[in-house]
Amino acid sequence: MPYELFYWPEIQGRGEFVRLALEETGAKYVDVARGPGGTEKMMRLMQDGSLKTPSFAPPFLKSGKRIIGQTANILLYLGSRHGLAPKGDAGSLWVHQLQLTIADFLVEIHDTHHPVGANFYYEDQKPESKRRAEDFRESRAPKFLGYFERVLKTSGGPFLTGRKLTYADLSLFQIAEGLRYAFPKTAVAWAKKHPRIADVRTRVAARPRIAKYLASDRRIPFNEMGIFRRYPELDG
Amino acid sequence: MPYELFYWPEIQGRGEFVRLALEETGAKYVDVARGPGGTEKMMRLMQDGSLKTPSFAPPFLKSGKRIIGQTANILLYLGSRHGLAPKGDAGSLWVHQLQLTIADFLVEIHDTHHPVGANFYYEDQKPESKRRAEDFRESRAPKFLGYFERVLKTSGGPFLTGRKLTYADLSLFQIAEGLRYAFPKTAVAWAKKHPRIADVRTRVAARPRIAKYLASDRRIPFNEMGIFRRYPELDG
Repeated sequence: MPYELFYWPEIQGRGEFVRLALEETGAKYVDVARGPGGTEKMMRLMQDGSLKTPSFAPPFLKSGKRIIGQTANILLYLGSRHGLAPKGDAGSLWVHQLQLTIADFLVEIHDTHHPVGANFYYEDQKPESKRRAEDFRESRAPKFLGYFERVLKTSGGPFLTGRKLTYADLSLFQIAEGLRYAFPKTAVAWAKKHPRIADVRTRVAARPRIAKYLASDRRIPFNEMGIFRRYPELDG
Repeated sequence: MPYELFYWPEIQGRGEFVRLALEETGAKYVDVARGPGGTEKMMRLMQDGSLKTPSFAPPFLKSGKRIIGQTANILLYLGSRHGLAPKGDAGSLWVHQLQLTIADFLVEIHDTHHPVGANFYYEDQKPESKRRAEDFRESRAPKFLGYFERVLKTSGGPFLTGRKLTYADLSLFQIAEGLRYAFPKTAVAWAKKHPRIADVRTRVAARPRIAKYLASDRRIPFNEMGIFRRYPELDG
């Protein structure tokens, strides 16, 4: 039985981190909300009062009878099932720690265009976004990128835990790719300053299954509804 | 050998979620940064280039030779070691999913007083905070609280997974306690509307080891440097 992934059909968003893991392992899955009537199906499932493990928000993954929510948690599950994380407890927790730090980074990336709140339009928080984005470019992003570059150096590379790819590397690829989309000017300097992260991006993009996926119409293009948005005024 | 917890010494912050788990299990631990020279020790350890699993930020936990970071990840580790989570994979992932949703909630609580960024003073983002806090009180907090109330109802209670306390219940207690501190007016209505969450708060506070902890000077009082801050202008 294929996995069923539930996520908003029009954006990469948090669902993309799960998609990349599913694609890399070659697992069969249905991207439910992208099919006919799929969003309604997702909403009904979310609100189903009989569910024992309801999710606060998409993405969530149906695996047989189980429903698992929260991006990093889904990856924890998939990682151990499909060899995208070390087998032992210590290695598994370390990869998960990296994933949670990527999740924190992602929140800050999102907040560059929605500092006052996700319930307000970008157009209604433009001055605040400029202030937040400046702080992001000058302080927060360098701190996160410096951290992952350091981890890649310590691991001996080319991946975050060394020679073997994990789901955290796939997520780091997505972050690098997204930053390049959202901050095209600034990201050039970032890539120069963090060659190991840039190398992860190149290596992941070149993996046969990922390369096929990126070229397919299963990969939703970046757009201005997602987490990574190209607003030139935020790129300094 | 006792655990060593590393976290900022002047606030409850994210470290408190770890402290509550350690206290409930009766585990021996040292709150390193609260001891003499402790903050320097923490900073040195964070910057130590030889560390194989460095943390992006506190809290992190030293357990023997291992160093584990990210609050939810530390709780995943402690939960399975000390019976604060179900033993099976399915139950363990479900509790972790709840914890990650609590972590998301916590970010939004923090952002009520720091929408434009943690690097700016509250005083420099007061109008934005008012806007964000209003949205939080009217939309985001009810959504999160409604979710946890629903989970408590479905589980049959009194705890999030049923009859047995998990680390997620300890964290939900801390959220309820913190909201009561930060939004004393609004929290009265919230407690009425979400009696099951209010009941978790009461039950956790009454657990012998937690009660002792809360009355001790190991519990740092809420204050206006932490995540939960009492700014009356944000309480509607």
